[in-house]
Amino acid sequence: MPSVRIRHLSTASADFEAEFQRVLHWSAETDDAIEQRVAAILADVQQRGDAAVLDCTARFDGLAADSVAALELSQADFKAAFDGLPLAQREALQAATRRVRSYHEAQKKACGESWSYRDDDGTLLGQKVTPLDRVGIYVPGGKAAYPSSLIMNAVPAHVAGVQEIIMVVPTPVRGSVATGGSGAGGTATRGERNDLVLAAAHVAGVTRAFTIGGAQAVAALAYGTATVPKVDKITGPGNAYVASAKKRVFGQVGIDMIAGPSEILVLADGSTPPDWVAMDLFSQAEHDELAQSILLCPDAGYIARVQDAIDRLIDGMPRRDVIRASLEGRGALICTRSMEEACAISNRIAPEHLEVSSDDPHRWEPLLRHAGAIFLGAFTSESLGDYCAGPNHVLPTSGTARFSSPLGVYDFQKRSSLIEVSEAGAQVLGPIAATLAYGEGLQAHAQAAELRLKR
Amino acid sequence: MPSVRIRHLSTASADFEAEFQRVLHWSAETDDAIEQRVAAILADVQQRGDAAVLDCTARFDGLAADSVAALELSQADFKAAFDGLPLAQREALQAATRRVRSYHEAQKKACGESWSYRDDDGTLLGQKVTPLDRVGIYVPGGKAAYPSSLIMNAVPAHVAGVQEIIMVVPTPVRGSVATGGSGAGGTATRGERNDLVLAAAHVAGVTRAFTIGGAQAVAALAYGTATVPKVDKITGPGNAYVASAKKRVFGQVGIDMIAGPSEILVLADGSTPPDWVAMDLFSQAEHDELAQSILLCPDAGYIARVQDAIDRLIDGMPRRDVIRASLEGRGALICTRSMEEACAISNRIAPEHLEVSSDDPHRWEPLLRHAGAIFLGAFTSESLGDYCAGPNHVLPTSGTARFSSPLGVYDFQKRSSLIEVSEAGAQVLGPIAATLAYGEGLQAHAQAAELRLKR
Repeated sequence: MPSVRIRHLSTASADFEAEFQRVLHWSAETDDAIEQRVAAILADVQQRGDAAVLDCTARFDGLAADSVAALELSQADFKAAFDGLPLAQREALQAATRRVRSYHEAQKKACGESWSYRDDDGTLLGQKVTPLDRVGIYVPGGKAAYPSSLIMNAVPAHVAGVQEIIMVVPTPVRGSVATGGSGAGGTATRGERNDLVLAAAHVAGVTRAFTIGGAQAVAALAYGTATVPKVDKITGPGNAYVASAKKRVFGQVGIDMIAGPSEILVLADGSTPPDWVAMDLFSQAEHDELAQSILLCPDAGYIARVQDAIDRLIDGMPRRDVIRASLEGRGALICTRSMEEACAISNRIAPEHLEVSSDDPHRWEPLLRHAGAIFLGAFTSESLGDYCAGPNHVLPTSGTARFSSPLGVYDFQKRSSLIEVSEAGAQVLGPIAATLAYGEGLQAHAQAAELRLKR
Repeated sequence: MPSVRIRHLSTASADFEAEFQRVLHWSAETDDAIEQRVAAILADVQQRGDAAVLDCTARFDGLAADSVAALELSQADFKAAFDGLPLAQREALQAATRRVRSYHEAQKKACGESWSYRDDDGTLLGQKVTPLDRVGIYVPGGKAAYPSSLIMNAVPAHVAGVQEIIMVVPTPVRGSVATGGSGAGGTATRGERNDLVLAAAHVAGVTRAFTIGGAQAVAALAYGTATVPKVDKITGPGNAYVASAKKRVFGQVGIDMIAGPSEILVLADGSTPPDWVAMDLFSQAEHDELAQSILLCPDAGYIARVQDAIDRLIDGMPRRDVIRASLEGRGALICTRSMEEACAISNRIAPEHLEVSSDDPHRWEPLLRHAGAIFLGAFTSESLGDYCAGPNHVLPTSGTARFSSPLGVYDFQKRSSLIEVSEAGAQVLGPIAATLAYGEGLQAHAQAAELRLKR
């Protein structure tokens, strides 16, 4: 009898499809009360600016201040936090930042440079790629205050060439009212600052920072206030209030994706030590009761050994209660007919993290069409990618890898088309444009093209 | 006394800033009645599928059908529409499609290919770029039914490698109730099909097409019904109902930008014939009363000549009423102190279309940081870019060029990070990851990294 009662499925059983749908089912329920509260906060900050931000921060985070300026952190605060850390943590922050920067520099070179070409008739066509001027990064307070997230958001912005990075990070008072608050569900002492986060701001580079959070922080960044500068884009994770606020200001400013619970899918051929796979499943499950860990494997004996490892290892984990709840609530060990079938099922899931735990991972990689990040081979534990391999750990969740991408340099750049039609080119293009414009009933378009024709 | 009373501003006058803010002001007011109606339609389609789509189509478009299948258009319909067009239109559609394809192929090559590299220790890092599986393209009915839009949406999807392109295009009945309807405000005869749009579907390549529109069409594409396949992303312009529906299904599927009124900004040094500039301003103004046409020029005499050209040319324009309403309501002729100042003001506006109407456009281009598309030199009328120069005409509006980009191949692709950590790499990365993970209180992450260390 297994101690962790994780769901076992087999693609060979008749009820597989129904069971599989139950495993996949997850929907971000919209909470009308949250929606209304967020709409009111956004409107208030838009109208009253700093005063509204101060009121919300006092009310939701229990943090009183005379002015928003008093809530600003300084570069000296970041430096002091960094200097106060043990050497190993300082070096780890620096090494991770260096590797993440190096990867994103390669990314910029591969897909983030301006380009253009000329036609035979001398017409120039291309795109100019430029950084955003100013971006806002939301860093949650509470239990999900991760310095690694700050690195993963700030570094690609820097590499893109963004000049100003404005961080908002709530420091809610322990036991303050959670409703409308800005933590990720946890508590914090009054004004308590997470030193690792502040140290990461020092290492990764943040221009300005305010200890505000929740919908009010998103509103301040989106609309600007007397103290908080208006940004062009807001990235970074947050609770339901933050997610709702980001979705509402989308269009006014850019936003990154709205993240759902984190997920890992391990595709195993049985060649990896079962303990490694069990721990990788744990590492996703420990995030959150709603996190999802799935194993796909054609070898039933191997699945049993992973179950044994799970049962043996769980008691040693400090976060075993969260891990157990996540594995039993949303996890699954799925026995497939073949690795090919496992790849096909993986494509249906479009997981955020996909480990190909195989001694021949490049055989399977070409079959994998949808995933946020693909971790190849037994040594590539997801946690290495989460912190320091280099690629971004902000990844599309809940199947959105079907249409969206990891956070990257491209999220902090925008493109402008470049067109320079030569006189000769205008003679060729003019009649085509005029014909189509007349067909659409847009005569001024047609005549603008015709005016450039030689008589 | 000018016949077209377009606003004249000068950066030298004391009230410039206030006047300029008035010119810039535009906000998409959220209409609560529309929001509620759209929410109800989405919920209905999600629950009842085809039946809800049929009900909405009958109710809003006045188009009755027994099944959604009866609303599907065939490849033969596209072909017949194409064959029925005059030769000049057929050739123009083909030439435009060919040029747009060629530009987007260059774009894919420049920024849409997979890449990877190996570290010294053999660790592989990169990104795999893959097309979306299936996309939906919304093509409005009514007065804004533009075949060129279909080309601009379908071609980059094809070039990206998308296998299935599902078009929705309403064919509302003339005089049918507009509320909740799918036209762009105009009327159409019963089931009347726009032959140019259908012909463009033939030339640009559309996999399947349904004569449905409005929020119900967006819902059908986002959720899927028994007949309409669920897509991964929805692109294409539409009215307020369509825009609201797209914003609501965002996250469930990908969407392109939500477009505001179209804009042109002409930056002129006085070297272009004034008639050309006047016609370019008209070509934006003729779209819509809310479209915005702005001229920035340091030469007051030239501005007067453009005003004269506007007054002389307006009466010859079939769409003169729309042009006049647009120019008088939202247009402006702005006299600046210098071209440099004109560039700075242009950056504040971040226009959708930016013409650099100068005999030395490459002198000014580097100063221009925010624009959807930059048209260089007197021969590059915006209309050439709208139809056939090659770059996409779907561009960020309302200042969103500060953070977003033209529609492109990249909108129909997504990226997956690739990470393969070598055994040697795991020895270097493991301690870094473990240190940071313990710092964040994520012990399973730490142990997953440590398990890969050699004892």
